[in-house]
Amino acid sequence: MCLTMSELCSLRLRGEGETVEVIDQTLLPHQLQWLPLASLDSYCHAITSMQVRGAPLIGITAAFGLAAALAKDPSNDHLQVSKAALLATRPTAVNLHWALQKIETCVLPLEEAQRAQAAFICARELREQDIEHCSTIGEFGCELLQSLFDKSAGETLHVMTHCNAGWLATIQWGTALSPIYKAHRAGVPIHVWVSETRPRNQGAYLTAWELQRAGVPCTIVADNSCGYLMQAGEVDCVIVGSDRTAANGDVCNKVGTYLKALAAQANAVPFYAAVPESTIDWSCPGGADIPIEFRDSEELLSITGIDDAGELQTVRLAGVDSRGKNPAFDITPAALVSGLITEHGVIEASSAGLAQLRSTLASL
Amino acid sequence: MCLTMSELCSLRLRGEGETVEVIDQTLLPHQLQWLPLASLDSYCHAITSMQVRGAPLIGITAAFGLAAALAKDPSNDHLQVSKAALLATRPTAVNLHWALQKIETCVLPLEEAQRAQAAFICARELREQDIEHCSTIGEFGCELLQSLFDKSAGETLHVMTHCNAGWLATIQWGTALSPIYKAHRAGVPIHVWVSETRPRNQGAYLTAWELQRAGVPCTIVADNSCGYLMQAGEVDCVIVGSDRTAANGDVCNKVGTYLKALAAQANAVPFYAAVPESTIDWSCPGGADIPIEFRDSEELLSITGIDDAGELQTVRLAGVDSRGKNPAFDITPAALVSGLITEHGVIEASSAGLAQLRSTLASL
Repeated sequence: MCLTMSELCSLRLRGEGETVEVIDQTLLPHQLQWLPLASLDSYCHAITSMQVRGAPLIGITAAFGLAAALAKDPSNDHLQVSKAALLATRPTAVNLHWALQKIETCVLPLEEAQRAQAAFICARELREQDIEHCSTIGEFGCELLQSLFDKSAGETLHVMTHCNAGWLATIQWGTALSPIYKAHRAGVPIHVWVSETRPRNQGAYLTAWELQRAGVPCTIVADNSCGYLMQAGEVDCVIVGSDRTAANGDVCNKVGTYLKALAAQANAVPFYAAVPESTIDWSCPGGADIPIEFRDSEELLSITGIDDAGELQTVRLAGVDSRGKNPAFDITPAALVSGLITEHGVIEASSAGLAQLRSTLASL
Repeated sequence: MCLTMSELCSLRLRGEGETVEVIDQTLLPHQLQWLPLASLDSYCHAITSMQVRGAPLIGITAAFGLAAALAKDPSNDHLQVSKAALLATRPTAVNLHWALQKIETCVLPLEEAQRAQAAFICARELREQDIEHCSTIGEFGCELLQSLFDKSAGETLHVMTHCNAGWLATIQWGTALSPIYKAHRAGVPIHVWVSETRPRNQGAYLTAWELQRAGVPCTIVADNSCGYLMQAGEVDCVIVGSDRTAANGDVCNKVGTYLKALAAQANAVPFYAAVPESTIDWSCPGGADIPIEFRDSEELLSITGIDDAGELQTVRLAGVDSRGKNPAFDITPAALVSGLITEHGVIEASSAGLAQLRSTLASL
């Protein structure tokens, strides 16, 4: 069943727009379950446990979480405590910081009685902006894909992606997947190589699922296969998302992105990162300054799927005496990135490219 | 429980040395079960289903399989049919071809009545040789590790490997892991990064298990993490095995090896392949000429582990409507390989290096 893009959405509003429901992404692709979020704790738990994930969606969800906290207690103290709790959920994605800052800046000058409502309005605006920015990223990225397609002899365009940077990682459209959706809708014959994305399998679980919901042909491959596919000439372009992009163009994204970028460079395959402005950390000079989150090694040593009866089962993969290490992100140096697809256009992944964008933004 | 190397063996002989038992490697690390092999069918099935795997072990197992087939019917016709059946089990590993050729060359001049016994003798010799060659590879590789350790300030040496090229992939010692075992026994403080090796998880299932049996400290990481670890300076050396090495030094090995080699080069980490002579395909000019095996995508879309009750369970990871592609090997260009560790010494991974080895061998 193919759905239209407006039906594909990861966070929906109920009632007066102050009740939030998110897809519990830990159950995908096996179960589609909407999870109501109300208390600050439920918001924090949803982010920490990766029921919601993806840098842009984390930011918007946290914004609603802070608004919900203010509805309970709008004092400055509670604002700071709640903001700190939300900030502590995930250390790498910069959108989290960005979105919480927006809410704080909006409510701080206000009387306490007005804060919750203003925070919800601000969170809803961030949500609408995210949809718009992702759509615009899609338009710019679609031009890139269209021009790659025009150079081919009418052959299907094979685009590789990593992790999930689609509408499940944002509100709608996605970042890395938005150009793919737009190109697909524009009639470009497109096929997506979905890399599994161990250890949490966001590719196999989420990206394949969401592409299939929209009718985009895709094939899951092991992360290990991505070099082979590029060597074999079966990849025309790589597009990934980013959890934080430094001021020099270094791209921090899901661990394994760097390996794809190396293989892309070695095989002359264009490698783009789709990066909304909210993902750029202007205060961060380079990738080395980005804190890398280490997650529980159980994410690697055990895995969840469905058994023959259709029940979710977690099984242990490694021997009981084995241990693991689980960095969640890596840094792709700017030199390996063909360009950054932003809502302001495609820019060079370099200090110069980002400085130019920043000055353009300052003059708006 | 740490065992000595002589206790760690993947294929053992029973009775008169004509009954073969192998570890069923599809059950590791959860169950250690010896599997008797008797009929040609059982040998073929063991190789195809990867109950035995690893290029050197596949070769030796197939040699015993051909001997078993000759014990049933020593005619030329049956020899050819049996050899063809064994050759068809796996297309990439060249040792299979090499070992079957050794048996055929040995028995063809003989009367039919003598063939089976001669074939078993030859297979046992190949088995003994494999142990000896792997041990020698270990000695040469150990010198490399010792010299890396000598350059450090007494720090633990962190070696990364991919897939399983240990005693489970050979008879004893292994190829890539043999230098590690030798260095560990020589008192070099060593720690191994074991990359999971999706989709069949030979790293997490087999390499971690066999290293732990021998008391070598190791940590399982996602294949995706290997670039991060090299960027972070946590890898001193990479050693992998090979399923076939071309005459120009290109190394065909488990899919994902190429990505590690790219990351090693980008981060100035030495990258070695441990390659017994039997793995070198002198007739193959370069990596592009090596056939790459594609395996069932179910290997990627489903996975087996143990549940809470300790029972083996297979669960489906991807959605029911998802499809996958599963190349089993990739090619690491010779230019990315710091050297080939053979039983004849460490040689340059290049046409010149291999030509020199070949002329040395011819003069023996």
